[in-house]
Amino acid sequence: MSVNDIDRLILLLARLPGLGPRSARRAALQMIKRPETLMLPLAGALRQAAENIETCATCGNLDTSDPCGICRIPGREAALICVVEEVADLWAIERSGAFKGLYHVLGGTLSALDGRGPEQLNIGALIGRVEAGREAGAPVAEVILALSTTVDGQTTAHYIADRLGGAGVAVSRLAQGVPVGGELDYLDDGTLSAALKARRPAE
Amino acid sequence: MSVNDIDRLILLLARLPGLGPRSARRAALQMIKRPETLMLPLAGALRQAAENIETCATCGNLDTSDPCGICRIPGREAALICVVEEVADLWAIERSGAFKGLYHVLGGTLSALDGRGPEQLNIGALIGRVEAGREAGAPVAEVILALSTTVDGQTTAHYIADRLGGAGVAVSRLAQGVPVGGELDYLDDGTLSAALKARRPAE
Repeated sequence: MSVNDIDRLILLLARLPGLGPRSARRAALQMIKRPETLMLPLAGALRQAAENIETCATCGNLDTSDPCGICRIPGREAALICVVEEVADLWAIERSGAFKGLYHVLGGTLSALDGRGPEQLNIGALIGRVEAGREAGAPVAEVILALSTTVDGQTTAHYIADRLGGAGVAVSRLAQGVPVGGELDYLDDGTLSAALKARRPAE
Repeated sequence: MSVNDIDRLILLLARLPGLGPRSARRAALQMIKRPETLMLPLAGALRQAAENIETCATCGNLDTSDPCGICRIPGREAALICVVEEVADLWAIERSGAFKGLYHVLGGTLSALDGRGPEQLNIGALIGRVEAGREAGAPVAEVILALSTTVDGQTTAHYIADRLGGAGVAVSRLAQGVPVGGELDYLDDGTLSAALKARRPAE
């Protein structure tokens, strides 16, 4: 069978994360059945996104403008920078609505295995932001390291905390403990010990 | 947050079967990172598919031509028609390479629950194909009902077998039994009894 339009569509869909060959076929069929309501709008949205989305030169967020929407909002606390690995993490924290400062997207973690060193990540720009703030008389007060609690994530956190050591800025990390709604029975030992160590007086 | 290009893309992706909101976000991010290799080709493939794909007036298959590729291949046995519910089933049988006849896509099954009667399905055209074959002197020898072994699928199979009763054509169904590579331990009771009932002499 030659690669016709349907096969080409399925091949491309199967390259999306979360879609295997089987679900790519199902998705393709569903779209072919509804060209006007799903296929053409998706084609348009993809083209528009490809044309319009850029990386924010300040924080590394993806948006239709540079500086991005978050960096441009006047109400956000510029003295608070939350460092995340990926844009997906930024989105997750934004959805929680619990953070009103600015972000800094690293683009990954340090990784000995994958050969990713500090120069492959957006770390220099973070140091630059802290220094520029101090020189401009609007110093960054706190850098929150919201990185994965994996070995690579924690190595990266250590490295950044070291680099920021002399910059006169507080460096913090996310609390570790029992997830909200989590059942103790299903928790791994590491999380349980972390939650026990960081226990707080009952209110 | 207003619905910008990224959000619109995620909303549309989340409507694909197999992609929830979380995986739609991951897919969108992955594409935004690789606009030239994934996002633009996918946009093009979608647009092209929307423009070019049509339903075969003979068998109901989806293809870039009408009659479809399968109906046009000279080597296929026109005396053998395999009736399937959806185009996805046709694709599955084609992948197996075990069938060299033609197809007929019903577009679903009869369903009392969903109020789908025979007139909502592509059944009249199937009867028409059998009659036209007889009149043209190239009669259909066998109609294979490759329908789901659900209640609705079997009701549909019964109905079609009834309708083809006087047409002088053999009507058959797929064999039921243990899947190839299947472990008895994991099989449901219905399949096990069907496999026992249809047992064959060991070769």
